[in-house]
This record gives sequence, structure tokens and C-alpha cells, in this order.
Amino acid sequence: MSKKLKIGLFGFGCVGQGLYHVLNNSTGFKADIVKIGLKDKTKQRTIAKELITFDKWEILNNPEIDVVVELIDDAEEAFLIVSEALKKGKHVVTANKKLLATYLDELYRLQKENNVSLLYEASACGSIPIIRTLEEYFDNEELEKVSGIFNGTTNYILTKTISEKLSYADALKQAQEMGFAESDPSNDVEGFDAKFKAIIIALHAFGLIIKPDEVLNIGITTLHDKDIKYASEKGYKIKLTPVIHRLEKNKVSVFVAPRFIKENNHLYNVDNEFNGVIIEGKFSGEQFLQGRGAGSYPTGAAVLSDISALSHGYKYEFKKSAQKCPPEFTNDVLVHVYLRYNSLTDLKRIEFDEINEKYTGNDYRYVVGKIKLKQLIKNRAYILENKIFISLVEESVSLIFNKAIKEISKKNKLVYN
Amino acid sequence: MSKKLKIGLFGFGCVGQGLYHVLNNSTGFKADIVKIGLKDKTKQRTIAKELITFDKWEILNNPEIDVVVELIDDAEEAFLIVSEALKKGKHVVTANKKLLATYLDELYRLQKENNVSLLYEASACGSIPIIRTLEEYFDNEELEKVSGIFNGTTNYILTKTISEKLSYADALKQAQEMGFAESDPSNDVEGFDAKFKAIIIALHAFGLIIKPDEVLNIGITTLHDKDIKYASEKGYKIKLTPVIHRLEKNKVSVFVAPRFIKENNHLYNVDNEFNGVIIEGKFSGEQFLQGRGAGSYPTGAAVLSDISALSHGYKYEFKKSAQKCPPEFTNDVLVHVYLRYNSLTDLKRIEFDEINEKYTGNDYRYVVGKIKLKQLIKNRAYILENKIFISLVEESVSLIFNKAIKEISKKNKLVYN
Repeated sequence: MSKKLKIGLFGFGCVGQGLYHVLNNSTGFKADIVKIGLKDKTKQRTIAKELITFDKWEILNNPEIDVVVELIDDAEEAFLIVSEALKKGKHVVTANKKLLATYLDELYRLQKENNVSLLYEASACGSIPIIRTLEEYFDNEELEKVSGIFNGTTNYILTKTISEKLSYADALKQAQEMGFAESDPSNDVEGFDAKFKAIIIALHAFGLIIKPDEVLNIGITTLHDKDIKYASEKGYKIKLTPVIHRLEKNKVSVFVAPRFIKENNHLYNVDNEFNGVIIEGKFSGEQFLQGRGAGSYPTGAAVLSDISALSHGYKYEFKKSAQKCPPEFTNDVLVHVYLRYNSLTDLKRIEFDEINEKYTGNDYRYVVGKIKLKQLIKNRAYILENKIFISLVEESVSLIFNKAIKEISKKNKLVYN
Repeated sequence: MSKKLKIGLFGFGCVGQGLYHVLNNSTGFKADIVKIGLKDKTKQRTIAKELITFDKWEILNNPEIDVVVELIDDAEEAFLIVSEALKKGKHVVTANKKLLATYLDELYRLQKENNVSLLYEASACGSIPIIRTLEEYFDNEELEKVSGIFNGTTNYILTKTISEKLSYADALKQAQEMGFAESDPSNDVEGFDAKFKAIIIALHAFGLIIKPDEVLNIGITTLHDKDIKYASEKGYKIKLTPVIHRLEKNKVSVFVAPRFIKENNHLYNVDNEFNGVIIEGKFSGEQFLQGRGAGSYPTGAAVLSDISALSHGYKYEFKKSAQKCPPEFTNDVLVHVYLRYNSLTDLKRIEFDEINEKYTGNDYRYVVGKIKLKQLIKNRAYILENKIFISLVEESVSLIFNKAIKEISKKNKLVYN
């Protein structure tokens, strides 16, 4: 049976306020927020003064508090709070993807050593119950691939560039005005946020613990009207899609990049601020989940769902990590991309393995071909500085991947896409 | 930690063989099928003779067997097996929607009294983890609506009528040839299968226990080319959609009928044998899940997921039933429908509250308007006998529902759509 929990909450921003509202308006579940830890003493607050503290130890050292809910921005401070809470035997619920992706191994160890529960459904894809579904439903099934749209901000921007033919800059501005993008949008538009989520999902889908530094993220900052026109003419939409893909030899590839998506892909219809996830199982086939990727109430509801699960004694079992032969992460893969470049200097530097299409105009040049992911990793800074745009070519993802698999056996080399 | 389970399996048809394959090829999970209970002694089997028994008591009385997996067709025999197994303290996994919908109250009581687990994820929407998601993730959130495409056979037929302009009869024939429809398709095409699933889902989404007799199901058997043409011209697809809808005054309406679906609805793109479910939460907004609704391996994988959950001691908690004020089922609602009729006699008999559109041609007559659901329940047999076709009008579902809500306060009467 469930137990009424005493919560210490850190942070009262968008998600914190959402949780507060959802908790107070939930008919099915009750829990007490005993204390709210805040940082900024100057801000006007709508909550009762006696609930507030500016000293984190007042929450961490309070034995009455069972659960720490961490909803602050700062990943370093969050790590301090979360690791202390776990050490003190408190359960933790967090929505902080940067914290989780950066300290996944430490946090995994801490929750295990202290035999407490660390839940973070709200950290990946907002209201979509992706972690729970992977952990509880696909725990016994070998997965082939998890892909999707994990970031609502970039999806909103990309939707506007295609549907309303806005330039990247105008679409970003609109997203900022609508509150879907922050004033410094780099975390979203450079693909960091999507990468953090991909890393969290890779743990539950494949049992992998990967460091953010190891995973390539190319965002949408270099998107140009020419690329949008190219995609539109070919019937594509452009989406920022992390792909977590099992290859042969028990290797898994993880990276984040824009991708051309055709109409037959579920993600084609995931527009605006929505998120979508495709899970491909060995036996269950393709599962598709769509929902709100962000927002005060949907994310607050995801946090509450974790708190409610805690009250029933729920704990992730990280079942994929307990596999006998968990797969290994690799960047030794070949990807099929469209690349818009400026001059031959770019192509000399960014070496393709195979070029299938080449277009050269006065003010627009692109190639489509196969390239080693490590070439993109090596040249990431160069690509961004020189405003080169890269997008995966969608239709080849499975087809060429299968063909490539055959080539691998010959070449004894890992190949992707 | 998990425990290696000993399974007694009843039935070795499509799903049973799927489970056998998935279990033998699963790397993540191991369980032993100790015995398989079969009925037909004449059939050639591919499984080892010593595994087979034709005496159900050999399984039910075997103390070594922890789990009974029931995958037979016959709901009455299944009830005997499942209730005996529960009484003997065995956990049960079943995919039998008719069994569940028909005996929901008894089975709910039996699993509770005997403190054993009864799991049935595979009974509703195949590989989509809908029960688990409702039970574990939306347990604390008040839901507004669950709707979707719960039956792959009818969806396959309806897809063919729209995309390939096949007549209902030809599409049904094709579905039978493809193995998506049985030789006697009535369970699917008359909407019984979808209704059973809706009843199971209503328990986990709203805490309701409803008897199949109480719930209207109108299938697609009276679909005519004229209806298909009407829908196509207006940009609709026709889908068979159970709707489980919370109204005001804590009432919930459940029924199954064809529905005109517009492109902006998630279900529009759920075609062929696929299933889709939309969950609308008070705070989390609209969640959409899509996956294979049937098939040997996907359904086998869903059964295996339940077995795996059992090995971790999982049990549904039926949290929505434990609510202080669970909602009540009602048929006192008003629906907005398109109705193709033959003559004025039909319209005199099937009384509309309000007619908004009327078309009369030499060989084609229809009305669009609002009608009490109870009128449709009363006239169900007449409608089917006289090949009258009824479809909900999609676009009005939420809008007119909201408008109607206001009218209710005036009229103090429950109104729907």
C-alpha cells in the first residue's frame, strides 16, 4: 500500500510550479511538500514564507523528509544536492537531464549503495513515460533501436521553418517569444539537451553508461534557407533526431544530428513543441509514443508520477545493465549524410568515404554520401564555425544499414546507416 | 531480484506459438514452460510430446507450476482454468479479452482474495503497453478520455476501403486472405473485440467495472460505398473507435462505433493492422501510443513482458478503483452522428434530438445530427438488420462536447459530443 510522503523540493521555476499545481489539484494522490529550497532571495514568491528555505541543509538534514525533488537548473549544485540526499538515505526525483547524463555512473552507484530510489521520468521527453516503458515493459526484450524527437524547442523552430517558411533566425525568435526557447538557446539548438536525454535513454534501453563527451551532437544552428528549400522540394521535413542504434557485434551507436524525415516515418507528424519516440523491439516491432515534451503541467505531472511510484516503493532495476553481455558503445560507424559546404577546402578537410551526389551552384553546394562518424566528430568545431549544415538522409537509415551490415562481414568493420 | 518461473501454458495457437518463440529467443529473460495444455488431440504439433497434456488438471494440480499462461479461444473454458489457477495460488497471465471483459468483477475479486497476480497486457492493443502505462504512470492523474483504434482487423479493412477504394466485402475478403480476419469475422467487424478491450481499459483508466451487455458496440458491417465516398470527399478516414470519456458529474461514457477522423487526429495515420491509443490527462495533456495490435510475435512479446514482470513480483494495484469517488458508467449521453438510412420509416423509429444536415437522393439518404445514445442502443438490431450505417462525426467530439457541457448546467442533463 502507499505511504504519504514528505517532500523537500529544490527549485520553484517552471517545472517546480507545475508540480506544485498538479500535486495540489490531484484527486488520486496526496503528498506533503514540507520545505522548498530556493536560491534567489530577491524574487517575489506566491508560496507561504514558512515553506521556504535558502539553506539546502535544512532540507538535506531533516529526517522527516523522505523524498528530495530536485528541479533546479544548475547541474553542479544539483549533483551536490542529489548525491547528499542519496547518501542520507532519501529517495530522489529529478528532471535534470544534464545532471543525469553527466553523472550517470556516480548516481547509479550511489542509489545502489544506499539502497534508495532515484527516479527521473520527467528528464526525458516530458510527459511521455519513456523510461518507465523501457524499464518495465521492454526489460525482457532485445531492442534494435530507439530514436525520436527529444527536444521541443528545436522541433518548434524546425516546424516553423518548414510549415511557415521562416528562416532559422526568425523561427528561433518566434520560439523565444512563445516561451519555447530560452534567451540563451544554445543548450537546445546545439543539440546538448537532446544528447543528455539520449544518454539517459541508452541506459534503460541498452544498459549503457556513456559520457556526454563521447557522443556527437550536431544541432540546427547552421541551418540555412537553402537546406530548408532542398528538404521541402524532396518532401522531407527536417527533425533533430537522436538515434540509439544496435549494430552487429553487440555495439550500439549514439549520436544527435538533424535528419531528413519522410512522410512514412512516425516522426514526420510530430510537430511544434511535441516529442515522439520510436522503440523498435526484436519481437514487438515498432512502438511509437507521442506527447508533450515540455511545459509546466505535463512535466510536473511526470514528476508527480515518479513521486507516486515512490509511495508504492518503486525503484528502477536497470535491468538492461544486469544483462550478461550488455552491448558496448561505439563511434566506429559510417553515416549517410547531406552536407552543404562552402568551398572545396571544406570537402578536403571533411573526408567522405563515398560521394553519391554532388551539386555545385554559384551560391549553393552540397554533397550526399557516406562518411565516418569520427570525421564529423573531429571536424565538429570546423563545421559549426564555417556554417556547414549536415543532415542524415532518412530513407537510407535502415536500408543502407542492412546493406552495410553485409559489407561489414567482408570488411570486418562496423558500418552504420 | 527475479525468480525463474515455471509455466503451465494453455493453448498453442498464434499467440501461444509466438510466446514459445519469443521466450526461446529472448536473451534478457528465462522461464521454463513445464507443460502445455491442449484440446485437439488430432492436430500435428511441433513441440516435444512430453510437454503436452490434454488434461487441464495436470497443470492446475501441479504444485511446481507458479504461473498459468492462458491463451485459448474459449472464454468459458478459460474462465474455468483461470479461476481455478487463481484459487490454487498460481499467478495468471492471459490475453483473453472476452474472458476478462465478461468476468472482470469475479477475476478482480479472485486475484485479490487469493493474493496472486493476474496480468493481461496482451489482451488490449497487442504490443502497446497500455494497461501498464495506465496502471503505473497515469495512476495518480485524473484522465479525461481514452480513445483509439483497438482492433487491427477492422482497421485493416477500413484502410483498404479508403486507400484502395475497395468495397467492404472485398476488403473483408482481402483481410481474410492476409490472415488478418478469421473465417467468422463477426467478433471483430461487429465491434465486440474492440468493446472487450475498451472495458478492460476503462477499469485501469477510470476504475470502472462494466458488463459487456451495458456497452453499445456498432461495428462496420453495414458500411456502404456511399459512406466511403462521403467520408473521402470530406477528407475523413473512417475508423472504428471505442471512446471512454469522462463527462461532468463524475460520469464516464463508453461505447464503440465507427468515427469520421480528420487529418489532425493522431488516429488518422494509424492504418492497416496497427493500433493506436490516445490518453488525455488533466495535466499531462494528450499522449499517443501506436504499435502492432496483433500478430504472433508482438502479442507473444506482450505476454512475455507480463511473465517477466511476474518474476519481479509485479501485480496490478488497480489504483483507479481504490479512488475515494470512482466515476460511474453512464449511457445517458448525446452523440453527434452521420446516419445513412433507407426511408422515413427509419428516421421515425430512430429519433434524433436535433438534425443539422439532411441529404435526400434517389438511392442515398443521410442525416447528420445529435441523438441520444440510448436511441442507438434500443435500435441496434434494427440498424444492423436494415443495413443502416452510423458514424460519429469526429470534429464535433470535443467542441460540441464543451458546448454541451454548458447546456447541461441549464438542462441539468448529461450530454455528450
